[in-house]
Amino acid sequence: MRAAKIKDRSKLIRAAMGEIPCDLTVRNIRFFNVFTGEIYPAEVDVLDGFVVRVREDGQQAPLVSKSVYDGGGNYLVPGYIDCHMHVESTLLIPENVSRAIVPWGTTTVCTDPHEIGNVMGVPGIRFMLDNGRKSALRHYVLAPSCVPAVPGLENAGAVFLEKEISELLEMDDVIGVAEIMDFIGVIHDNERMHSIVDAGIAHDAYLQGHAPKVSGKELAAYRLGGPVSDHESVSAEEVREKLRNGLHVNLRVSSLVSNIEDLVEGCADHPWQDFVSFCTDDVHAKDLLTVGHINYVLRRVVECGIDERIATKMATLNAAREYGFEDLGAIAPGYIADMLVVPDLRGSRPAAVFIEGRLVAENGKYLGGDRMEEKFETDNTVSIPQIESADDLYLKVPEGYTGETICVNVAVPIPGGKGMRECVPEELPVKNGKVDLSGDPSLAYVACINRHGLRNKTVAVYRGLPLMRGALASTVSHDSHNMTICYRSPEDAFISCRTLASCGGGISCTDGGKETHLTLEIAGLMSRKACREVSDDIDRVQAAVDGIAPQGMSLMTPAIMSLPVMPGVVVTDVGIVDGRTQELIGCFPDL
Amino acid sequence: MRAAKIKDRSKLIRAAMGEIPCDLTVRNIRFFNVFTGEIYPAEVDVLDGFVVRVREDGQQAPLVSKSVYDGGGNYLVPGYIDCHMHVESTLLIPENVSRAIVPWGTTTVCTDPHEIGNVMGVPGIRFMLDNGRKSALRHYVLAPSCVPAVPGLENAGAVFLEKEISELLEMDDVIGVAEIMDFIGVIHDNERMHSIVDAGIAHDAYLQGHAPKVSGKELAAYRLGGPVSDHESVSAEEVREKLRNGLHVNLRVSSLVSNIEDLVEGCADHPWQDFVSFCTDDVHAKDLLTVGHINYVLRRVVECGIDERIATKMATLNAAREYGFEDLGAIAPGYIADMLVVPDLRGSRPAAVFIEGRLVAENGKYLGGDRMEEKFETDNTVSIPQIESADDLYLKVPEGYTGETICVNVAVPIPGGKGMRECVPEELPVKNGKVDLSGDPSLAYVACINRHGLRNKTVAVYRGLPLMRGALASTVSHDSHNMTICYRSPEDAFISCRTLASCGGGISCTDGGKETHLTLEIAGLMSRKACREVSDDIDRVQAAVDGIAPQGMSLMTPAIMSLPVMPGVVVTDVGIVDGRTQELIGCFPDL
Repeated sequence: MRAAKIKDRSKLIRAAMGEIPCDLTVRNIRFFNVFTGEIYPAEVDVLDGFVVRVREDGQQAPLVSKSVYDGGGNYLVPGYIDCHMHVESTLLIPENVSRAIVPWGTTTVCTDPHEIGNVMGVPGIRFMLDNGRKSALRHYVLAPSCVPAVPGLENAGAVFLEKEISELLEMDDVIGVAEIMDFIGVIHDNERMHSIVDAGIAHDAYLQGHAPKVSGKELAAYRLGGPVSDHESVSAEEVREKLRNGLHVNLRVSSLVSNIEDLVEGCADHPWQDFVSFCTDDVHAKDLLTVGHINYVLRRVVECGIDERIATKMATLNAAREYGFEDLGAIAPGYIADMLVVPDLRGSRPAAVFIEGRLVAENGKYLGGDRMEEKFETDNTVSIPQIESADDLYLKVPEGYTGETICVNVAVPIPGGKGMRECVPEELPVKNGKVDLSGDPSLAYVACINRHGLRNKTVAVYRGLPLMRGALASTVSHDSHNMTICYRSPEDAFISCRTLASCGGGISCTDGGKETHLTLEIAGLMSRKACREVSDDIDRVQAAVDGIAPQGMSLMTPAIMSLPVMPGVVVTDVGIVDGRTQELIGCFPDL
Repeated sequence: MRAAKIKDRSKLIRAAMGEIPCDLTVRNIRFFNVFTGEIYPAEVDVLDGFVVRVREDGQQAPLVSKSVYDGGGNYLVPGYIDCHMHVESTLLIPENVSRAIVPWGTTTVCTDPHEIGNVMGVPGIRFMLDNGRKSALRHYVLAPSCVPAVPGLENAGAVFLEKEISELLEMDDVIGVAEIMDFIGVIHDNERMHSIVDAGIAHDAYLQGHAPKVSGKELAAYRLGGPVSDHESVSAEEVREKLRNGLHVNLRVSSLVSNIEDLVEGCADHPWQDFVSFCTDDVHAKDLLTVGHINYVLRRVVECGIDERIATKMATLNAAREYGFEDLGAIAPGYIADMLVVPDLRGSRPAAVFIEGRLVAENGKYLGGDRMEEKFETDNTVSIPQIESADDLYLKVPEGYTGETICVNVAVPIPGGKGMRECVPEELPVKNGKVDLSGDPSLAYVACINRHGLRNKTVAVYRGLPLMRGALASTVSHDSHNMTICYRSPEDAFISCRTLASCGGGISCTDGGKETHLTLEIAGLMSRKACREVSDDIDRVQAAVDGIAPQGMSLMTPAIMSLPVMPGVVVTDVGIVDGRTQELIGCFPDL
């Protein structure tokens, strides 16, 4: 597979032969050859976005190029490739992700627009593709395989079956099926996953895996079911077993997970690591401002003891070959001129970043080189007519119930359960037809409100949330991204709710009527703002959250309260779900 | 790209989960994992030709497989892949090549049917494809890129331009464009090569290179022109430069060329060799009987100092990835079960060979496992009506010429020219209107007779051939495979000529009327006989050649006397050609 079509091959051949000048020469560099592992002085000539020639010491260019970039004695390496990331996790739109990560040396990302797919369906994916084309970054998309993540236990804004996956795979820049995380479905060969994999195979598409803790016969069954990669290992043994079974392993350093030492241990003693590459999965805006992106994975991997040349190969050539790209991941004649001038091979910030031979970043500053100017409009995707007043956010007892207390399934922390919850029946007071939490400050409401037009909602009771008062609401709530709210005050919750409904979504905190929010107007998931502004907005909302939860609670807490693949109790728009059994739990156990 | 379609994925998944039994388990083996470089005890389960699971020590199969093969404590490695070979060079048809090489462990060959393409055009390629499907071997074909090799200086039986290449690339099992040996044409971007590469790119095909001694700006231009590999290096420096430029390097050990020490030196000190694989190019039947095939390349490479695990990876996974195969070159769930039970990793003959899970060879014996029974007919491709008598094989002086001698351009060895020749004018006697060589035993005739229906021929005079009397004729004569004869006696030459015309081609030696020949009835290039019989036939004809050339001359001598890419004088059906200048030379310089 070629990432870019050479428009005029004859011109490149003539340039190599010295008959016409090149666009660019990068000189005064220590050239890292990813095919041979060698480092030697060289100059690189580029024309029309492609490498024309790498001239070793002493080989003069027949003609001087139109521009010459002095590498200042730094290394020249291929641009970094992220094998798996969710753009939505940054809360930025693709073009602004580009502006944030290109200065760190990432030149290609393979993204899973799983979140916007769940909200907006195929048009959402098309938005990501279109917006991704605006900036310099090479932005590929994989077709989300699990929309919705758990059919029947949640309602997303779209359903992707074989037809939708095929439709997506026909689009330019859609190069595979994204993380096939319903590994149970694959192993047990259910119809949905089988037909989605069929669509991928019919398109000769890359089938991205996602198989945490899958091992032994299940791992073999999973691999046979289609997926060729994984990025979810939690231990060295898991990395080792997946590599042994022929899976490409993407070593992940995300803003959420930090077990890179274990991952590296799983492959460091092998004589070669051809099937090892890198990914970031979920990265927050602040990390993009401070620690970086794939360069940071590279740095961490080198710190864990991998030779820096091997690590650089993982970040470049291995990743390109994993996807079957024949013209990415290296600097040689015919390869796309995605190149980094770097002070070392250990992930430090590049002095210069070239994409298709254009200088797109220098010393941390994004210089543009954008591909197109385009305005875009998106609709408000937050539809919650079912919430008309604060009253709708109370937990009401069934009509006709007359008792002074009622037995409620309260979600309480499982002892030693690493934050997971289980339901325990408790007698709670009833007041005016509503369950009354006011007398017990350790109780709070958690509601999940369908925002895709279905008009349903679930209100549950949690014990032991660090919330003292107020409300925190979010339209970022995996994987269906319904509006999830945790609150002590239904009145504050209603204010947050209405605010998010009118601004198109985001994260809102209300404390005694005082509302603070971060607008995520694109699908309720992403902001149009730049990385630094979004990062500042996050800090501002987090400060408000600190006010209602002095013991500490992340503004992203609602994002995982509605996720039915969690091994514990969650609240979806369908009801209270025990993720361990994948079963619904009634709110009132005795009724 | 997948080499084989999984017919029933659900069945494989169920087998992995232990719900249904597998076809085969190979047990008691030391498993070589080509992804991780590890060696460990394991058992391998196979169903429907695919690897279902590799069970490490202690993991029991849930169900016993239908058959169990005891590996006797040997290693289990993936089947070897030959990245480039000409089946025709063996003088065997594909199904018999299979019977000869499968017992040595080669399970996949990527062949260039360049020779039969030059003789029979597209139908010849189709014959190779069809016949290659009969036997167990996985036989891929690449579309010959240079038919004819040197347009204008020779006439072949076919011309392949963009249209024919496209037609071939549409066929099943045609996976690329074969060695693009007109590197001058690529570098100077001539229309023929440009359009043939265009056809390859349009089909996303592998573009095989062939660029001996091409270096510097020419190598960059060649790579930009399309080709992604090379197998023609003559030195360590050449291997190194080609790898640095991103070309896949196929280390070659053929029956003709032996410089593997130099080739290995060009990559041995690199920290990785991902872009290095193996090929045999041209192998003679006798070598297939005695030294082997890709296993022999492996042995030689290990002898040259490459770690045997790395060498085994070159012969398997590296080769598969060079071609973009995702299911060949390794033993893991979902991979095609091409596997070898071998006593060591140094190229010794396998104890057992499995292709798609079928035991197809054991201890050197081919066991069949053929894919189809099919008879085939081929036409006699030798058409030489222009030779009606021995008289037609004399060198005649121009009509009306009355001198007693005539100045003739005689092809004589270039001093220090490694067997190459140049033309030097000499006065030779004339008798009955013919140049008379009878008085000078160091002179001989060389004739090239078009056998593809054009009725033309060339007769030239050579000095210093080791031929004392008689004639040696062959329809194996690169690249157009016209009939080439070297002879002292036109009468003997005529006998050989008629014999080959009537039997459909081959190699014939006649000594004073006594004729001995080897029939190559398939396109005048290949025999239907098995490897050992062909080898015996070769010995028999070589013994006859030893009679007419006591100082020693190979029966294959005519095969390169008509090859205009040689850097010296050759004789084609068009005339005497100086391969250095690519110009025709008149026979009589003064006329």
